[in-house]
Parts: sequence; structure tokens; C-alpha cells
Amino acid sequence: MGNTFGTIYKLTSYGESHGPMIGGIIEGCPSGLKIDFNAIQHDLDRRKPGQSKVTTDRKELDIVEFVSGIYNGESTGAPINFIIKNNDAKSKDYSDMETVFRPSHADYSYHAKYGNRDHRGGGRSSARETANRVVAGSIAKQILAHYKIDILAYVSSVGEIVTEFDKNLSNQELRAISESNIVRCPDETIANKMISFIESIKSDGDSVGGQIFCTISGAPAGLGAPVFDRLHADLGKAMLSINAVKGFEYGSGFEGTKMLGSQHNDEFFNEKGNLRTKSNFSGGVQGGISNGEEIYFKVAFKPVATILSSQNTVNESGDNVVLKSKGRHDPCVVPRAVPIVEAMAALVIVDHLLLNRTVKL
Amino acid sequence: MGNTFGTIYKLTSYGESHGPMIGGIIEGCPSGLKIDFNAIQHDLDRRKPGQSKVTTDRKELDIVEFVSGIYNGESTGAPINFIIKNNDAKSKDYSDMETVFRPSHADYSYHAKYGNRDHRGGGRSSARETANRVVAGSIAKQILAHYKIDILAYVSSVGEIVTEFDKNLSNQELRAISESNIVRCPDETIANKMISFIESIKSDGDSVGGQIFCTISGAPAGLGAPVFDRLHADLGKAMLSINAVKGFEYGSGFEGTKMLGSQHNDEFFNEKGNLRTKSNFSGGVQGGISNGEEIYFKVAFKPVATILSSQNTVNESGDNVVLKSKGRHDPCVVPRAVPIVEAMAALVIVDHLLLNRTVKL
Amino acid sequence: MGNTFGTIYKLTSYGESHGPMIGGIIEGCPSGLKIDFNAIQHDLDRRKPGQSKVTTDRKELDIVEFVSGIYNGESTGAPINFIIKNNDAKSKDYSDMETVFRPSHADYSYHAKYGNRDHRGGGRSSARETANRVVAGSIAKQILAHYKIDILAYVSSVGEIVTEFDKNLSNQELRAISESNIVRCPDETIANKMISFIESIKSDGDSVGGQIFCTISGAPAGLGAPVFDRLHADLGKAMLSINAVKGFEYGSGFEGTKMLGSQHNDEFFNEKGNLRTKSNFSGGVQGGISNGEEIYFKVAFKPVATILSSQNTVNESGDNVVLKSKGRHDPCVVPRAVPIVEAMAALVIVDHLLLNRTVKL
Amino acid sequence: MGNTFGTIYKLTSYGESHGPMIGGIIEGCPSGLKIDFNAIQHDLDRRKPGQSKVTTDRKELDIVEFVSGIYNGESTGAPINFIIKNNDAKSKDYSDMETVFRPSHADYSYHAKYGNRDHRGGGRSSARETANRVVAGSIAKQILAHYKIDILAYVSSVGEIVTEFDKNLSNQELRAISESNIVRCPDETIANKMISFIESIKSDGDSVGGQIFCTISGAPAGLGAPVFDRLHADLGKAMLSINAVKGFEYGSGFEGTKMLGSQHNDEFFNEKGNLRTKSNFSGGVQGGISNGEEIYFKVAFKPVATILSSQNTVNESGDNVVLKSKGRHDPCVVPRAVPIVEAMAALVIVDHLLLNRTVKL
Repeated sequence: MGNTFGTIYKLTSYGESHGPMIGGIIEGCPSGLKIDFNAIQHDLDRRKPGQSKVTTDRKELDIVEFVSGIYNGESTGAPINFIIKNNDAKSKDYSDMETVFRPSHADYSYHAKYGNRDHRGGGRSSARETANRVVAGSIAKQILAHYKIDILAYVSSVGEIVTEFDKNLSNQELRAISESNIVRCPDETIANKMISFIESIKSDGDSVGGQIFCTISGAPAGLGAPVFDRLHADLGKAMLSINAVKGFEYGSGFEGTKMLGSQHNDEFFNEKGNLRTKSNFSGGVQGGISNGEEIYFKVAFKPVATILSSQNTVNESGDNVVLKSKGRHDPCVVPRAVPIVEAMAALVIVDHLLLNRTVKL
Repeated sequence: MGNTFGTIYKLTSYGESHGPMIGGIIEGCPSGLKIDFNAIQHDLDRRKPGQSKVTTDRKELDIVEFVSGIYNGESTGAPINFIIKNNDAKSKDYSDMETVFRPSHADYSYHAKYGNRDHRGGGRSSARETANRVVAGSIAKQILAHYKIDILAYVSSVGEIVTEFDKNLSNQELRAISESNIVRCPDETIANKMISFIESIKSDGDSVGGQIFCTISGAPAGLGAPVFDRLHADLGKAMLSINAVKGFEYGSGFEGTKMLGSQHNDEFFNEKGNLRTKSNFSGGVQGGISNGEEIYFKVAFKPVATILSSQNTVNESGDNVVLKSKGRHDPCVVPRAVPIVEAMAALVIVDHLLLNRTVKL
Repeated sequence: MGNTFGTIYKLTSYGESHGPMIGGIIEGCPSGLKIDFNAIQHDLDRRKPGQSKVTTDRKELDIVEFVSGIYNGESTGAPINFIIKNNDAKSKDYSDMETVFRPSHADYSYHAKYGNRDHRGGGRSSARETANRVVAGSIAKQILAHYKIDILAYVSSVGEIVTEFDKNLSNQELRAISESNIVRCPDETIANKMISFIESIKSDGDSVGGQIFCTISGAPAGLGAPVFDRLHADLGKAMLSINAVKGFEYGSGFEGTKMLGSQHNDEFFNEKGNLRTKSNFSGGVQGGISNGEEIYFKVAFKPVATILSSQNTVNESGDNVVLKSKGRHDPCVVPRAVPIVEAMAALVIVDHLLLNRTVKL
Repeated sequence: MGNTFGTIYKLTSYGESHGPMIGGIIEGCPSGLKIDFNAIQHDLDRRKPGQSKVTTDRKELDIVEFVSGIYNGESTGAPINFIIKNNDAKSKDYSDMETVFRPSHADYSYHAKYGNRDHRGGGRSSARETANRVVAGSIAKQILAHYKIDILAYVSSVGEIVTEFDKNLSNQELRAISESNIVRCPDETIANKMISFIESIKSDGDSVGGQIFCTISGAPAGLGAPVFDRLHADLGKAMLSINAVKGFEYGSGFEGTKMLGSQHNDEFFNEKGNLRTKSNFSGGVQGGISNGEEIYFKVAFKPVATILSSQNTVNESGDNVVLKSKGRHDPCVVPRAVPIVEAMAALVIVDHLLLNRTVKL
């Protein structure tokens, strides 16, 4: 339970923060895909720790090695196994915490479930695991490119600093701006405010939350499933499975609850033979199935639990103790979480694309 | 795809709005459960149409009949099949819509996926299907009662009208107030405002959205799974699979993105031998696994798509047409959605409870 | 667990021998299939009890009613639910057995697993459940007909009486002969011997086993999966899931263990542009994936456990008791099991056909 | 599809014969299991190539390295990833075969399915993959030891040479004899005949089939599931998923089809408070669920497809060609398949044990 994502295109993930390596097995990749290894490494670099002054100082090369399922640079249909070695694990930083439950971490809940756990760096609960998702998602994006489907995510808020990005910009332009700054925000002025704020938070040893906006363009109508496996429900689960995520909304989201039906309904019209909608409060999904419009959603990330101030807590013996963390930490995860959101979205869309074959006889 | 929910405790659902019946098969119910049939019917009555002036006028008895898996009033471990007959389907109301795509309904996306569909009353995409979930969820709640786990949902907002319920009230008190008014809101004054508002909306032939709050008390620490099948991710998918849902947040949710780690972290303390947290921004789940605190979340429902004013749309031939709906409709779904939210929460928790057996050797 | 078969094309089955009805939900049927209801009823008639002097005397009409997923005679892609009412259940015949474990039945093992069970007529463990498979399998055969895939099964042995059918006969001819006699054997002389033998066994209140041969023609190369979900492994599981089955072999089977590689290997040759094999000891499957040749296998059925002589056994209290069965019984199941074998084979092949879409990019 | 086995205790397998490594991820292992690494290596040594004069000459150390899910020698509940490096791959032996379809191998069926494949040493279709199963199965056997469940397999025939082992011998004694000879046969005289026969076959460059018998002792009553996921159906699928397997039978098997019910029924009796059966034609499983008696079955292996004589075949261009194999090969797989059969049986039994928790309320 819990280590596999997907039905046809599947990622099974393994590895702990301070073990020798992490990695995963990708199943269901169509054969004959020419793998763009640079693109995968680029996505890993977007996620990797130590990439800028607004991230943790842990240095990991995050170099991925493929050991099966690819022959002469092309997928064969066999499971693709990949390995990412851990280089900069400093387990000694965690020796004090072996028996102490860090507040708002998974230490206690894992202890309650498993009894036995690798506490070093959060072990299995560490967000280091998300590097595996980026690899599988990056290959998924390469499959989607064959279908002209594009996935784009960026930071829409850090704490109270919110961006109102320019709706006249294309995906390409938004991507260019976002990726040109270290918070991945598609507005340079706001980006600079975010960076300053995160720097000050970091110097306080504190952390802050934020939000990521994601849009999926080019998805055909008909993706998804009715009733339980609705496309947005699978996207929601995918996003809520990312470390530190507290909420998910698509289309009109929570604001939509305040609207009237007469305001919210998306009228259809015929645009040169294509059925389109005038507005898109539906977020590109109706009844759980895509309608051909842009699919978009927002993801909420809490402030990182690791902070450097003293905190009251309890140890495994039940003693009240004071904890002072020493491990390196991210002051705000959203800049590094952008490629993770894209990866999880890509996993969902590819899977529904491969499942969507029950055509009319 | 899409008609089954759960891993051990599973519901497979079938039926269309205007077919002879709907129903489902429940698998994985432990044997020896004495079924409280009245409790199930009570939950169905809370969901059924025509129950009050703020719901649709469609009258359905929604009487459930069990035809397998129960012997002498007790579950046997065999699959439990149940049937709910459709009595008040008025298919003629929909004859005009056979080839017209209603805005913000699933008509077009189903058409794009399947080509062939039963358009009457929305067919498979109708929220009538959720009656099946209420049956399976009501039995799930009976299993949870054996483990002293209680699930309580109520309406927390309708449009812009928001309730700030009294935190000193017990679940029992909140339930008593909510269930005593037809909008299922735990504050009588606010409830009356909501009722008046919905009535005015209904008389306009319009609709409005709302939010539901749900809390799960008594769940032990250790439920859930790491990485992909996090407890809150499964709760999120469950909620997002309900018709008209646009968003899900748990614990601090979207507001939490604005907080600092030093404000957000839930410090542990030892309460008479039990590990507890001082605050509960985590929402009872850490690293995807329950920590023994109250699990709580909020669900956003959009305004119902069926409204009685004229709307521009397109038909199957691609012609731009004007649609004037005649079918009966709910002006606001949240009062009837309360037992559905409870049911889906119960399905998730029972399933994780039955899965959570990999005890330490 | 245990009530669902398949991944894309799925049957979820419910019902007990003496409950009001049995039935099931079929998911994954492509939309737009014109359902041939007569063909389904014909297959049910081939399986139904009381069809001839060599079967049980229980009389069931086995009329199937479809209540969802079909609109204007065509599948819609929504789950297809069907109902088969039980008419001739004589539960009183079983009242003596309420607390007695019948030898070689599932009474004790179900009791050990569930504690609580519906003992009447074997309850859930009754082969009556296989009528559900015939319905789902019959629709599956209609899908396969679109792909020119034909499935044919017949009785190849009853006790020691074995048929050596004429290899020069076409499937059509073999089917015509098999279905013209009440044991479903493709050799009339042998069929008569089998009939006489079963009649004598029946008059003794005893039972006998037998074997069924099944062949799948027209399956394209490429169906199946490597490693665990090999096509023949899924066929094997499907057959071993049928009541009373004790063994499965495909291609050269157990006899093949005695052969040398130089005798057993199937040499390839080019037949007018099609790759073919000279012999077919592989049984049409190599490395778990079909190679385009005929897929064939054999299934072993034990003698029915219900016999009318006195037997020593134990009751729920642990007392040694003598049991004298009164229920009606089949002296030999293989004539009625022919459509069940075909149905399970069809479920496997349709499922692999619908899964087999991961084409080369 | 096809690379994962199991529901709770799951193995996901990857790797090709001539890639850098093979391996897998084990999920669902209960936490706190002290891993006996020597026992795992011992099982790998029983399967590894080059172990004796009756096996292939390929030399592989088959040393397994665990890189996650184990901390201080104990399982943590996190996925266990393991790696087995390929050392003695001689890909040049296969360069002639890059475009030639070897008879009775998976070359053509893989080509038909995937288009692109790693042909070296059979790539993904190579039985080298079964080393992964041995690792997962060996850990499964360690879990089963906690429940006093013992799995024992041995060679019961090679070609026409069949062993009639002494029924008075204990599992321990049978294991001691089987493992003391290189064909793993529990009768020394027969073992010697088998060895001589295989040696002569090997010197001819030919191959021969054989059978393996497996028995599972100590399994409690109640394991398994009704209808589709019967215990013996899952065992059957597990065995049929092993390379070169053509048949599976349990209990009375194919011979049982010739018996009368009055001979075949296993009468129950009370043995000091335990319900037992006098005979065991049921093979320890009734209605798909274990009854507490010994579970036993037989598995048929065809002769290995790689032989050294010239064979007619076809290449990817459709030309008729003559193939003369040069790769090293096993003259008979059954001696090395014994630990594979045990491993697959262990995977099935552990999985059903972990699933079997839906106790009576």
C-alpha cells in the first residue's frame, strides 16, 4: 500500500532520505519512446536541494541512472528501473532525534504504525522521495508531448504575497518568466518580493507556506472516468500525496461556492467546428471527464515543519522534552515543488490517456 | 474504471437516473455485523430528494432492499448486493435535451467519451448515484461504531453565508442542532438565513454553492499509508468524487499557506500517558498517517448546473441553440450532500482500518 | 476479495444459491455494442440445471434481466447490472445440514473463515454463481466476434471415457456435434457411452469427474503480458476459479514434460507473409504472450461432492455424525461446465485485448 | 501490467538478462521482521546458474544487495528494494540472433507486442528474472516461519523418470535428501538416474522437461477467498507465471477426473478437538479456502527451448533462415526451479495470510 501510483502507467517508489539510494520502477511506458535524458535531468535539477539561496543547503547531485527497460535509448515496454544515489546525507544531524518526535513531522505517526523506523532525515517520510516522481513524471511529459499536451506549473503565492499573472501571456512566456527566477513565479516584481521574504524567514530559522498553480493544455475531451475515478479526483489525490500539501481546488474551487448557477455555468458555443465554452469555471472537467478546455487547479502547501527554534515535544518514552533542530531545511517548499506538481499531473494525465481506449465499437 | 471505490471494503456502484433501479455491491464487510437497517434508511432519508422546501421536488422513496450477503440479519462475509428502485423518473422532461449539451453538465464530456449515452435525467452522471454511496457508507459507519469512531458532517456555508459554530459544543450537540433544521447547519440563526436565501434563489430558478465541514473523532494513530495513499489523499479523492465538488482542504488548508512554521507546528505533549498535540493544524494526519487527533476537512460544492433560465449552448450536430430547462432541480446541494460526505469519509476510514493489519512481528 | 474478475472488462458477482436472486455488474464493456440478448440466454440455457437427464433435477429458468448500462439495446459504457432470480430453491432439503459439514464441500472452510454463513444450498459457495460468469462471458464473446476471435469448448472425457476428436473437423463442425448431444462431446459414439455411464452413476446416487477442452481461434499475436500476468497464467487462474476444477494445462501440458526440446520446439515459417509455427506445442502462447497460433488448454473437474450415500462427517459442535444427503445433485458437471469454461476464457481474452493498447509510439 | 505480483505483500520486478542488474521492490512486509540474509542467499544459490553439471554453464554470483526498507537488520514497513548485478552476460553470443526469432522462445511474441526489445539473452523474457522472485519468496518464507507454515518443493520427475517418494518420511527428511543431490529429488536412486539422463541430454545439446511437487504444511483453515481468488487459483496463476510451466494440478488433479464422488470425498473426523479429513484428495483447499490439511500441488515444466542443434525459423524480415544456437543453456530446468516454486508458493500464502483479517465482529 502506498508506494505505487497509477493503473497502466505506474510508478513504484522506494528509498529513504539517508539510505544509499532512492529510485523506482516505471511500468506501462509505451515502447519505442526515445527518451530525452537531458529533459529528465533538467526537471531533477529544478527540484534538487541546494539549487539557490531560498532552498535547503543540502547538496545532492540527483543524478539519475537507468538500469532496465531502455535499449538503444528507446523504451522497450519492459519496466524502467532508475536509481538516484544519496550523496550528502548527514545522519549525525539526526542522532539527537532518534527517539524524539519532531512536531508536525511524520515521526510519531510512523512510529504508531510501524514501531520500527529509519529516523535519519525523516527516513521514508522525507520529501526526498519526490525526486522519484519527477523522473517518472518527466518521462510522462515526453509521452504527452506526442499528444501535444503541455503541463505548466508555477508559484502563485508565498505566505501572503500573491501573484496576479498576466492572462495575455502564453504558456511559453509564463514558463520563461517563472523559470528565470529562483521562486518560479511568473511575475518578476512579485518574485523579488517573495525571494526577499523567504530570505528573511530563512535567517530567522523559520518557514512559510505557499501555493502552486498548474494548468494542462491540449488535453482532448473524453479523458477521465465517471463516478469515483473522476479526472479531477485523481488529480486531487495526486497533489494531496505530495509532502506538505493541505488543499486542492480546480476550476472555480472554494470561491465557486459563493457563486450562483447563472454566473457559474459555462455556456457552450461552436468555434469553427469545435465545441468550446465561453467561461471555464468547470476547470476543463465536467462530470469527471475532460471537455477539451484548459484543465487548471491550485495546490496549497503548509510551512515546512523543520524550523530551527526550540520546540516542546515528547520522546518515545513519553517524556516531555525540548527539541532544537539542527538539520538543514527549506524555508519554503513551493519553488522546489513546481516540478513535483507537474510530474504528478503528468502521471495522472498519461494514465488516463492510456486507459481511454474503450472506444465505441 | 470508475465504478468501484475501496481496496478491502469496496463499493461497486451501478444505475442511471431514469433506469428501473440503481444499486451496488459491497465487498469486504466483516462477517457477523448485525445490520441496523433503520439507520441505513435514516441516512437515505437525509439524502433523498423532496425532503424539504430547499431541495428538488422529485419524490423518491429511496427504499433499499438487500438481496445477498446478509443471513438472519447478520453479514456473512459474502458480497452484499442492494437495490434502490427509481419511482419518480419523469423522462419526458428530458426529451428536449436528448441531443442538446446542457452547460456545466456532463452531457458533452460523456458524449465525447462514449458516443452512446442514456441522456434521461443525466443518466449515469446523475447525482442520484450517490444514494448507493450512502448505503455503503451507512454500513461502514456501523463497523466504525465497533471501534468508537464517529463521523460528523454539517453545512458550514451557503453562498456567502458562513457559520462560525460554537467550539464548546460536543459532536452530539452539533449533530442535534444540524439535523434539526433543513439545511443541516449547526447554528440555528445562520440556518434560518441560509434557508431564506435558498428559497429566494429557488424562486428565481437559480442555484447557489456551499461548503460542508466534516470531522472524524476517535480514529486511532496509525491509519493511512505513506507516500501515495496518504489518509488525507484518499479522503480528498473520495470527496472530489462527489458530484459538484470543486475543492478539498484538511487541517489548516489554504489558510495554512499564509502561516509561518513557528505558528503552524503542532507541539506534542504527554496527556496522562497519551501523546497529544496542543494545536491541530495538521488535521489529525501527519505524513499521511493519523496521529490520534481529530481528523477534519472542508469540501467545496459549486452551484448546481440545472437552472431554469434560458442558456446558450450547442447540440450534437454543432448548432448553436437556446436551452430552457424544465427538469426539477436542487437550488443548493449541500443540505442533501451532508450524508454523502459522511458516507465517503466512512468508506475511506473503514478501508484503512481493515488494511491496517500489518502489525509488527 | 474474490468477487471481482478482470482489470478493464470486469465482472463483480454476488448472490447465494437460495437467496432471492444472483447477479453481477460488468464494467469496461466498450460503448456501442449491440447486445444480442438471445445469445446470452442461449448460453445460460446451456448451463442451466434440469436441462437433461444427465444433470441435476433442480429447475431454474435462469432468465437474465438487465437493469443498467444498456440504452436502446446498445451498451453505453456505464456499468451493466444484471439479475437472475432464483425460483426453485428448496431450502428445506438443507435444514438437516445447517450445522453439519458436508465432505469435500466448502461448508467447513467457509465456517472457519467467516463464522457466519448462509448454509442453504451451499450459499455463496454454490456453483449457481457461475450463471453470472456465463452472462458476462457471453457479452465478452460478442465483443470478441468484432475481432473475429472464436472460443469453443467441449467435453473431452467423463471418468475413464476419453474422446479422440477428428482433427480434420472445423470449429463449426465440432461445435455442431458437441451441442447436438447432452454431454457436449464432439464424437457421437463416445457421447453415447458417456451418457450411459453418467446415467448409471446417477442411479447409484454417485458422481464422476471429467475434462473439458477449450480452443481460442483468431487471437492476434501480442495479447498477454510478460512475467506475472502471462496470458496462460490468467487463463489458468480463470479456469481454477471454477467450482470443482482441480487442474489446468495448456499446449503440451503435463505430457510435454516427457518430451525433448528437439521434439517440442515449434519451428517458425513464413506462410504467405504470416509468421506461423509448424507444430503448436506452445499452445499459441510464448513467454506469456500470444503468437497468433491457436490457443488451447484442458481443464480437470473432480467428481461432484454431493452424493446420496451415507458419509461420516463432523458437525459444528465437533460431534462425529453420519450424513445422508437429500438435495438434488449433478452426477457429472462437465456437460453444464462447457459454457462456463468458454465464458471464463472470453473474460480473459477480452480483458487482455482491451489492455493491449500500449502501442509503439 | 505483468511486473507486480500480490495484493498486500507485493513484488514488483524489473531487469533484463544482459542489463547491468535485475531486482525488485517488496511492499507489505510487516515491520520488525529480523531478516535472515544467509537464508536468502542460500535460496539464491539453489537457483543460480552454474551450480552443478546438470545446469547451464553461465556463472553468476547472484549476490543480493538490499538498499531500502531495512534498518538495523529489521524491516521497517517501507518498501524493500534489492539489487542483483549481472556479471557473466555474454551478449556477443546473441548478436547473431538480434533479428532472428528463436523457436519456442518469446522473441516473436515480444516483437509482435512491443516492436522494440532488448534481444540479448532473451532480455526481459529470460528466466533470469526469477532470481527476483526467490528473494521476495525467501523473505516470505521467513514471515511464514512465524506462523509455523513450511513450504517444501522437490523434483518428482525428469522426462519419463518418475519418483515415488516414501510417504513415511517427514518434510525435514525429504528436504534433506532432495537438497543432498544436484537434481533435488527425494529418492537417491532415482536422483542418480535423473542425473545420468540429463548429462546425456546435455551432451547431445538437447533438453528435457520435468515436474515439481510442492507441499505447504501448517497453513491454518480459512486462508483464501471464494469465487475468483480461490487459494488454489492464485497458486495456479503463480506457478503458471514461472518460465516454461505448462500445467498445474492440486489435490487429486487430472487423475481425480476419473474417480467417483464416493471414492474422492474426504470424510471429516474429530481428532482430539481438531477437525481433520481421512483422505486428502481436496489438496487442503475446499471451495477455494484452506481447510487446515496439507496443501499440495504439481507443476509441469516443458523442455528448455534453447537447444544446440540447427533449427528452421524466420527472421524479422520474414526470411526463412536456419538457426544454430551458441548461448549456454540448461538441459533441464527443474533442479533450479525448485526454489522458484517454493518462492511463488510463499508469495501466495503470505499474501492470503495478510489479507485474512476480516474477522467476525
